Amino acid sequence: MKVPVMEVFGPTIQGEGMVIGQKTMFVRTGGCDYSCSWCDSSFTWDGTLRSQLMNVNEIIRKLEEVGGERFSHVTISGGNPALHKGIGELVEACHQKGWKVAIETQGSIWQNWMMLVDDVTISPKPPSSNMETDFEKLDYYIEQLTGHNVSLKVVVFNDQDFTYAKMIHKRYPSVPFFLQIGNNSVETDDNETLLSNLLNRYEWLIEKTTESVSMNNARVLPQLHTLLWGNKRGV
Amino acid sequence: MKVPVMEVFGPTIQGEGMVIGQKTMFVRTGGCDYSCSWCDSSFTWDGTLRSQLMNVNEIIRKLEEVGGERFSHVTISGGNPALHKGIGELVEACHQKGWKVAIETQGSIWQNWMMLVDDVTISPKPPSSNMETDFEKLDYYIEQLTGHNVSLKVVVFNDQDFTYAKMIHKRYPSVPFFLQIGNNSVETDDNETLLSNLLNRYEWLIEKTTESVSMNNARVLPQLHTLLWGNKRGV
Ligand code: SF4
Ligand code: SF4
Repeated sequence: MKVPVMEVFGPTIQGEGMVIGQKTMFVRTGGCDYSCSWCDSSFTWDGTLRSQLMNVNEIIRKLEEVGGERFSHVTISGGNPALHKGIGELVEACHQKGWKVAIETQGSIWQNWMMLVDDVTISPKPPSSNMETDFEKLDYYIEQLTGHNVSLKVVVFNDQDFTYAKMIHKRYPSVPFFLQIGNNSVETDDNETLLSNLLNRYEWLIEKTTESVSMNNARVLPQLHTLLWGNKRGV
Repeated sequence: MKVPVMEVFGPTIQGEGMVIGQKTMFVRTGGCDYSCSWCDSSFTWDGTLRSQLMNVNEIIRKLEEVGGERFSHVTISGGNPALHKGIGELVEACHQKGWKVAIETQGSIWQNWMMLVDDVTISPKPPSSNMETDFEKLDYYIEQLTGHNVSLKVVVFNDQDFTYAKMIHKRYPSVPFFLQIGNNSVETDDNETLLSNLLNRYEWLIEKTTESVSMNNARVLPQLHTLLWGNKRGV
């Protein structure tokens, strides 16, 4: 089964979430059922770039071509990789190679292969995205993945998003919970200003979190790749 | 049993290691059996500041006084907290309050209470520290903590340190392994220069790691608190 692939790159580090810092390859799939106002990967779904339909063997070959022997971990990102049935085969093929697999999805579309993934990050989108969370679907996701290595991550841009994050954390108290500061200048190439803005905003989110009793068990993280490389792609 | 305490502060975030980003209180104990050349907490052992001998009730009261209800996680750092027998009681008292406990130690002194700690980071010191690793003690540490939530973390300043890190990772392949970029200007208060230096050096460490097949399963992290607040203490 073929999967639309936008880019294969690495090895680099995972810049965010539950396995932050992990040395990994990235496979970025095309297409998303959302269109978040601040999407930092809108090229995966807005038509500016074309994806390439690849079967699993081709993806594995590409991973080995780009990463050589210098990896044992693959992150599948998007877009929303959960759009694609074919990823189940890809996860299995990675496992056969001895590689671990991580994925990130907003939790809007379930696929049974999700159970095979080593680290699943579910990132429901807060109000600032202009998207609506389907809680029936999200409940089902969390239920299915109970006992798996799963985490929730909410990107926060403003107070309203923080309130949404609290609600999500309260709804699924036993799931490891990550807050991530949003990047509100995904277009700029002025890295110096971007860096100081991101750190200021990260500090703001830390303060909100330290003040909030309901966030006592949260983890608050930046996007390390953005601190390092700004909005550059494929690093 | 009393414990020499240098400072109690928070809630803030854990800036490094296996629970990076975690909202937590800090209890910093006095004293260290090492004297690393680049120690960023040398005030805990070089005599510039005095510690206060506190019993467990006093420490718990202090934590509640400083942190109110705004925490459920306590990090015990130093110095080397493993110098102090009394920390066992402290860990138990924290658990009774429903708080989780994390600790960091270089792995030179074993204490049985180490088994009670929720997240143990062992950070053997590389050559640039001018310290010598006692591998018999370190082997014993890792053996005792098998099955616990334990990780290894090596701070890297130069190529020689990186070689040491590879050796450690190879010796204990099943223990989650973290690389951390060293801060070689622990005295400066020029935060802007510090930040750009740290990010450059972090990028160097990422490159070393991505090039190295033996580091395929490593995680590479900066110290978030230093990126945010420079060398300021108690944040
Ligand atoms: S769900 Fe993710 S990929 Fe899709 S639009 Fe939102 S941010 Fe972009
Ligand atoms: S072991 Fe830690 S506290 Fe002790 S001297 Fe080294 S860096 Fe400082």
